[in-house]
Amino acid sequence: MTGLTRRDFEALDRADTLRPFRERFVLPEGVIYLDGNSLGAMPKETAARLQQVAAQEWAEGLVRSWSRAGWIDLPLRIGAKIGRLIGAEADETIVADSTSVNLFKLLAAALPLRPGRKIILSECTNFPTDLYIAEGVAALLGCRLELVEPEALDHALCDDVAIVMLTHVNYRTGRMHDMAGITRRVQAAGALMLWDLCHSAGAVPIDLTGAGADFAVGCGYKYLNGGPGAPSFLYIARRWQDRMILPLTGWLGHAAPFAFEAQFRPAAGVQRALVGTPPILSLAALETGVDLMLEAPMPALRAKSLRQFELLAALMDEALAGCGFDIVTPRDPDRRGSQICLVHQHAWPIAQALIARGVIGDFRAPDILRFGLTPLYLGYAELWDAVAILKDIMAAGAWDRPEHHARAKVT
Amino acid sequence: MTGLTRRDFEALDRADTLRPFRERFVLPEGVIYLDGNSLGAMPKETAARLQQVAAQEWAEGLVRSWSRAGWIDLPLRIGAKIGRLIGAEADETIVADSTSVNLFKLLAAALPLRPGRKIILSECTNFPTDLYIAEGVAALLGCRLELVEPEALDHALCDDVAIVMLTHVNYRTGRMHDMAGITRRVQAAGALMLWDLCHSAGAVPIDLTGAGADFAVGCGYKYLNGGPGAPSFLYIARRWQDRMILPLTGWLGHAAPFAFEAQFRPAAGVQRALVGTPPILSLAALETGVDLMLEAPMPALRAKSLRQFELLAALMDEALAGCGFDIVTPRDPDRRGSQICLVHQHAWPIAQALIARGVIGDFRAPDILRFGLTPLYLGYAELWDAVAILKDIMAAGAWDRPEHHARAKVT
Repeated sequence: MTGLTRRDFEALDRADTLRPFRERFVLPEGVIYLDGNSLGAMPKETAARLQQVAAQEWAEGLVRSWSRAGWIDLPLRIGAKIGRLIGAEADETIVADSTSVNLFKLLAAALPLRPGRKIILSECTNFPTDLYIAEGVAALLGCRLELVEPEALDHALCDDVAIVMLTHVNYRTGRMHDMAGITRRVQAAGALMLWDLCHSAGAVPIDLTGAGADFAVGCGYKYLNGGPGAPSFLYIARRWQDRMILPLTGWLGHAAPFAFEAQFRPAAGVQRALVGTPPILSLAALETGVDLMLEAPMPALRAKSLRQFELLAALMDEALAGCGFDIVTPRDPDRRGSQICLVHQHAWPIAQALIARGVIGDFRAPDILRFGLTPLYLGYAELWDAVAILKDIMAAGAWDRPEHHARAKVT
Repeated sequence: MTGLTRRDFEALDRADTLRPFRERFVLPEGVIYLDGNSLGAMPKETAARLQQVAAQEWAEGLVRSWSRAGWIDLPLRIGAKIGRLIGAEADETIVADSTSVNLFKLLAAALPLRPGRKIILSECTNFPTDLYIAEGVAALLGCRLELVEPEALDHALCDDVAIVMLTHVNYRTGRMHDMAGITRRVQAAGALMLWDLCHSAGAVPIDLTGAGADFAVGCGYKYLNGGPGAPSFLYIARRWQDRMILPLTGWLGHAAPFAFEAQFRPAAGVQRALVGTPPILSLAALETGVDLMLEAPMPALRAKSLRQFELLAALMDEALAGCGFDIVTPRDPDRRGSQICLVHQHAWPIAQALIARGVIGDFRAPDILRFGLTPLYLGYAELWDAVAILKDIMAAGAWDRPEHHARAKVT
């Protein structure tokens, strides 16, 4: 028994030092949004910033804005800002392309740094696009992708492993890897370490420098609130930057992009990982999201996220006992990100029934209900209400209606 | 002597059936914009569309908009629309990534279709990023990039050429290739043909199907008015689609992206060339630009572009005689795109002096002044005024001031 009432959750909201950040977002009425780990909410400033970029920088400034409005600097400028969220130096991160494309660039460029080694090692529960991209790189470069269970990683670290690619926080379970420990063991085995931070950037404290990581990628549209399909970021530890030949040798990665030289000469530093002309509208929205995130102290965000998880888990344990749910996210705070995931054999229709009642979480095949905790804008009383609605749906059997069983194109 | 006066140009504007399209764009006061071939102007509807996507689809719809607002369909939907501008079937074009990334995908996937052949053939005056990317692909796959003068292309078509990559309209001179003729000769030599349409999509009539082209890429931010860094498009002739293994095997190119299968299975058709999550804000702006372009009949656009070139060339011949300019764009209408390019040994400071007077063209290293003709929004009287200003700058020696010699980061 938690002994807690909705009043307790309201009191937590009143005492929440992060509460003012909620007012910085546009959030729809009647919705409890627990899917900010799939698509973050929109900061109020983003709409204004987009209008400024469109009406002033593009329409009035026209092509001059590449210099005057600093468009050409956005990939490095936003990269440096994201660097502060992931424990990188200012010259180790860029924003460019999608996470998938960035994974390709890093994997293909990293393999030659470990000549003779032929294995990309990952875990079978990694996010599919990471595995697909690694599969493609392996096929292209005559290597192979080896997949193991997370517990078997250490055992699989043989002399033939060139690089280990892991997602810091698992998308389906929320389980978080020990970044420093794994990086150390991987490097001790002579391999390189690439972290996918899609579900951890802006969600948990990250210290790539402290962990000694070699490479990282991550996504702008989840906890960074950068907008749908926001460009991705890419991190290369300084020690590797000038030794890497990126496979996608586009003009913005050239040492002198506007000299229009006939041959490719890589730019110094992480800039060489740029490829083509960046999508400015999407970058501008991303920068606004990142700026807002940087205003909030990460320790406070993390503390609120952990507390929200504990309260939500306790409420669920109590309210949903006997309903067939199993919380698969680790209860140990050091081993989880900022989401709570439940297995249920009817996860799909339950997720749809929740959405119909205004509680937006998501479903991950085959049987996972996933709820993201985004302490920048998620309140405590909302947690109470979400569990009350879920309890109601289960008690009334309201999830078991034909309309909730229909499958959507996008899940 | 042209015998023309400004009144004649004003009369041409009044008689111009395309003139109403100019009102559909936001154009700054006091500017004559001759750089729409670098960054197209902003359609008025784009600002409204961006607000709709931000404030309604993203902020209110949140993650549901991937289905409900059709975000997931944008890459194919906009691709089909662009297909109408380039003579493609509706299922042969997608919008994704940057031109550079798309070139990489196509080159790397095309080479295995011609096993044993080891050459990517292009011309030395191609746009640098095309050459850089080809250089990168060649290094990665153990092939080589061979560059020749345009006139030597036929001669270079030996048995070892796997693919020929050419830009339809040259970025520096505006010279246009004979797409159908070259494609026929390339294919007769057993090679594949890839066209870069960056400077021709939306600028000249294109018939990829009629020409029998194999592959194409192009850019959304020039004549398509899709916004700064708008995503690129990629065309694969239907006959090749299911035989190509794209090197960047991201989740959106999977046959069932949301099934989260462990192994990559390419989607049927051109969809397999998708990689990561697309930048929706930038895509929405691009779609607005493409929709507007589709309202205008291409024959009328082409006729106006040709006429504007001829008038501009005649005015320049007359007004700038003895000033050291040389028009390098072919006078033959069948051999040029929609721009006029002049060589001058002081091209850089002249371009800057023009910009200072509100005439925005651009400079291309080492000595080219480039003026884009965008008949959707460019008027005739503006041409008269631009030449008058250029004449004035040359006569007064106003280009030769210190501030015009300073080099910018972006040119």
